[in-house]
Amino acid sequence: MNEVLISKEEMQKVLKAVFLKYSFSETQALTLAKIHTESTLDGITSHGINRVSVFIDYVRRGLINISASPTKIAEMGSMERWDGNLGSGVLNALSATNGAISLAKEHGMGLVALRNTNHWMRGGTYGWQAAEQDCIAIMFTNTTPNMPAWGGKHNRLGNNPLVIAIPRKEGHVVLDMALSQFSFGKMENLHLKNELLPFEGGWDKNDHLSKKPKDIIDSGRAIPVGYWKGSALSMILDMLATLLSAGNSTYKIGEKESETAISQVFLCIDPNRFSDRDLQEKLINEIIAYTQDVDPIKKGDATYYPGERTMATRIKNKNEGMMVSSKIWNEVLALAR
Amino acid sequence: MNEVLISKEEMQKVLKAVFLKYSFSETQALTLAKIHTESTLDGITSHGINRVSVFIDYVRRGLINISASPTKIAEMGSMERWDGNLGSGVLNALSATNGAISLAKEHGMGLVALRNTNHWMRGGTYGWQAAEQDCIAIMFTNTTPNMPAWGGKHNRLGNNPLVIAIPRKEGHVVLDMALSQFSFGKMENLHLKNELLPFEGGWDKNDHLSKKPKDIIDSGRAIPVGYWKGSALSMILDMLATLLSAGNSTYKIGEKESETAISQVFLCIDPNRFSDRDLQEKLINEIIAYTQDVDPIKKGDATYYPGERTMATRIKNKNEGMMVSSKIWNEVLALAR
Repeated sequence: MNEVLISKEEMQKVLKAVFLKYSFSETQALTLAKIHTESTLDGITSHGINRVSVFIDYVRRGLINISASPTKIAEMGSMERWDGNLGSGVLNALSATNGAISLAKEHGMGLVALRNTNHWMRGGTYGWQAAEQDCIAIMFTNTTPNMPAWGGKHNRLGNNPLVIAIPRKEGHVVLDMALSQFSFGKMENLHLKNELLPFEGGWDKNDHLSKKPKDIIDSGRAIPVGYWKGSALSMILDMLATLLSAGNSTYKIGEKESETAISQVFLCIDPNRFSDRDLQEKLINEIIAYTQDVDPIKKGDATYYPGERTMATRIKNKNEGMMVSSKIWNEVLALAR
Repeated sequence: MNEVLISKEEMQKVLKAVFLKYSFSETQALTLAKIHTESTLDGITSHGINRVSVFIDYVRRGLINISASPTKIAEMGSMERWDGNLGSGVLNALSATNGAISLAKEHGMGLVALRNTNHWMRGGTYGWQAAEQDCIAIMFTNTTPNMPAWGGKHNRLGNNPLVIAIPRKEGHVVLDMALSQFSFGKMENLHLKNELLPFEGGWDKNDHLSKKPKDIIDSGRAIPVGYWKGSALSMILDMLATLLSAGNSTYKIGEKESETAISQVFLCIDPNRFSDRDLQEKLINEIIAYTQDVDPIKKGDATYYPGERTMATRIKNKNEGMMVSSKIWNEVLALAR
């Protein structure tokens, strides 16, 4: 696969031009360019630079309303319900995260339930955002159906990414996990390299679990993390996102031609309410040190805390630039022209 | 395996006698008897009747202080930090759940972080408790190390059960999942029947993933749900439980001879703050109907919502009585004598 080396500054400049060309405001274009660049910088290329053309396609098809901004539907003390009005998923999620942070700083805990929004790209973005503002966060989104519920043949669950973040001086702890074992992006990459998945990743057309990425891409049926356990977790997170936002469930999203008008939850906790931040930091550092004080199971392996490798990738890419597929980069350049 | 059929009333009576004999008060003994019976009634025998002798052993060894009751350490509006003072894990967790429910009814959301408590037996107990009081709940506990962190050889993570509950007129939705793929209890049962696990459940002594229960029981190293994903989720839940309660992490618990002085989080949300409970009910029912409207992947299979089979088992066992291992039942009868 041909790749080009792109600096942070260059990517952000080009992306801003793309978003301006598609009629986003100066501020919106800058924010979107920043977020897509940061995701790529953090190594989540699939939801950074690689996703830009899909995003623009959504804008072109009118699935994303670029002039929409979220509106508050109801407020109940520390909880609020918002409507994303089908605006950009990134801008809506940034706004909802800020809302939940403000509520947490005021009340100790804060929750924003957001409906009728669009794909938030990398879920981790909002976990890092909350951690940067010294908040603990628990966030999740529903999606279009892309996994069967355990026991059934047909896709009925979303892979519903779950984000949990804890601020930490020496590097925030940020978990960002979809509830499918592998993303279709990962499976596509391995298929192109003619490699097998390390573990079964979904069902083939004959309803057998398979490690062959192509089999699963063709069937479109990914496996939930932990089989029946991830299936149940995905279902209940969809229920929570749907009922708290009074928005669309994975069921309703699946009835649409494209994944849009989805539901999300942003829950923040202000750790400063507890008057022992130094102790908290020490306790977290002890956990990290303990989990890392091990022999590797395979030579050269190591254990990491959630977010650790993201931060390492970020620093490396800031210094050295990002490797981007030439095909993708040319597509993005063409969008800017 | 020889089994006896025990009615709900009989089990509760015998268990109350056991707890009274071990110096619990009348109220405590009744509550503990009720909870252990209900878990058994719900089919979670491993944390119901089968766990009683372990619990009594903890009492005998002074690891559980039967005269302790939880004390409030700090309150910050909708959040409270409590110390369980090494009392019974069940009584402490019931109290913490009630606290989180009260805070949620007052503030919309409520959180109780509990430290220095003991094993809460079946985590689902507190999810059902919150749902019965018309509250949404998210709860988790840490445990002694019983899984390696992904990439490492040695146990560094707990299987940290996660409970999520949503009240629902036609039957509450209650997820109760440990973060190991299989419990050691389940592995023990399959080993006794000379059966393999349906999927790899942990590592053998040679650091290979295995489906043989005995291999994993011998190594003591269970696999996290979804491999690296459950590993990360377990680690971050331990961090949250530890920092919010300023209590022991899995690391510190692992330094003790027995699993005690653990940390837990009880988060409740009052869904009545949103003035559309009927709509919420409808949305949840739509999700359930959608996930169940499928062809089974294997003939005779079906999909269930979390808590559905628990409720079916409860009704069956209430009517027909519970099948209990004769050996276990005789041990319990001996404890009461």
